[in-house]
Amino acid sequence: MTITFIGSGNVATHLAEACTHAGFTIKQIWSRSIEHANEITKKFGGVAIDNYADVLPADVFIVSINDDGIAQLPMNLPIGESLIVHTSGATHLSVFEGRFINYGVLYPLQTFSKSRTVDFREVPLCIEANNAANYELVNDLAKKLSDVVHSVDSNSRSVLHLAAVFVCNFTNYLYASGEQLLEEQKIDFNLLRPLIMETAKKVQIMSPALAQTGPAVRGDEQTILRHLQMLDDHPQLWKMYALISAAIKTTSI
Amino acid sequence: MTITFIGSGNVATHLAEACTHAGFTIKQIWSRSIEHANEITKKFGGVAIDNYADVLPADVFIVSINDDGIAQLPMNLPIGESLIVHTSGATHLSVFEGRFINYGVLYPLQTFSKSRTVDFREVPLCIEANNAANYELVNDLAKKLSDVVHSVDSNSRSVLHLAAVFVCNFTNYLYASGEQLLEEQKIDFNLLRPLIMETAKKVQIMSPALAQTGPAVRGDEQTILRHLQMLDDHPQLWKMYALISAAIKTTSI
Repeated sequence: MTITFIGSGNVATHLAEACTHAGFTIKQIWSRSIEHANEITKKFGGVAIDNYADVLPADVFIVSINDDGIAQLPMNLPIGESLIVHTSGATHLSVFEGRFINYGVLYPLQTFSKSRTVDFREVPLCIEANNAANYELVNDLAKKLSDVVHSVDSNSRSVLHLAAVFVCNFTNYLYASGEQLLEEQKIDFNLLRPLIMETAKKVQIMSPALAQTGPAVRGDEQTILRHLQMLDDHPQLWKMYALISAAIKTTSI
Repeated sequence: MTITFIGSGNVATHLAEACTHAGFTIKQIWSRSIEHANEITKKFGGVAIDNYADVLPADVFIVSINDDGIAQLPMNLPIGESLIVHTSGATHLSVFEGRFINYGVLYPLQTFSKSRTVDFREVPLCIEANNAANYELVNDLAKKLSDVVHSVDSNSRSVLHLAAVFVCNFTNYLYASGEQLLEEQKIDFNLLRPLIMETAKKVQIMSPALAQTGPAVRGDEQTILRHLQMLDDHPQLWKMYALISAAIKTTSI
């Protein structure tokens, strides 16, 4: 089976690797940046292109570009009756309606960085398709890539994606904020790393609502005030601290 | 060596367990709630008390209560020349100045829940004392409990504690927010758990500043707008989403 990728970002890179491991042939990697496309083809084969006019037919097309770009995909690509899927959490299946024949979604619910190896067989894949036959095609593809495949419709997927922004993207921003606060005082971020791991491990078996600790849930008002004073020179972190502490206080169990 | 705990919360419970494993004898557990004190003495020995007048001499006193309460500890406790340490991240060493003779701090930089077992030997302990001799006492004690002992002064400890609130307490609140968003749509929180683990694992080896992913850092404005619309009925989450996304955009690399 030949697979062409539209896109060369983190998700495309990790999916291309998983496809190669599954025995599929990478046919082409399209990217606005031929250098980025080359980075993938160097590792996993296929031909790098940066012009939509150069796209050739393939068995499966995987569209893994900026959410805003999926709706702007040219309609004259040689997709024909091949399967085309996008990998976006936030984009409705119907983005392909009336533009392609056989289409679906293959959304990997994971955070990817190019420099980091992920065991793709553990990555939850949320899949959807425009009819039962195509669902089976997407399902077969997904199961060759991962052991964790879920049927998720567009509405549920958009909620999952929103929740993922909170538990992953925003969480990482909080990690970065902690790192910055320590750097300013020349304190080693390594001291916080075990805490970050344990915070994540706890909620693998507990409900986060029951795992809440810290000054806000304990009602340590003096500590909260001191922390806000310490953030006087960090207006964004000050606002975040005040907002999240107030939220924890009102939802505490 | 006999140890008395003032306090019976999560930290006291896990420290009492670690002290028992290290071969120390728990003498008394003081708590405002005799039931809470009993929970610890049942497991790890010692006598539960709920009246400061009943505190007996011991070799070491570990004060593990609400931050606001440490400064209000009665001065007529029979501490004498025994070592007294508090376990608070936010409370200055000087809280004990002029009130006790030999004192220090033993701050476990970890999140504890009573129902969750932690390998205490991996918990970073930040220690400090009012003189070199007491530092050695606290250091000896700490090393019997954990393999990760750091000398951290009160100012650095307060910054570490503030950063810990961001990477642990606030992060857990984001997990709980994700859980709530899914629950409202009857979506299984298990789908998010691998993402939570990977987000934490990534920053064990990468700088979080380099690990940032998601709509805000990618500049997916349409997705951000859709997410804000989805949060219309959640004013606190709406504000958090807007604030953190704006912060990610301004600090993106």
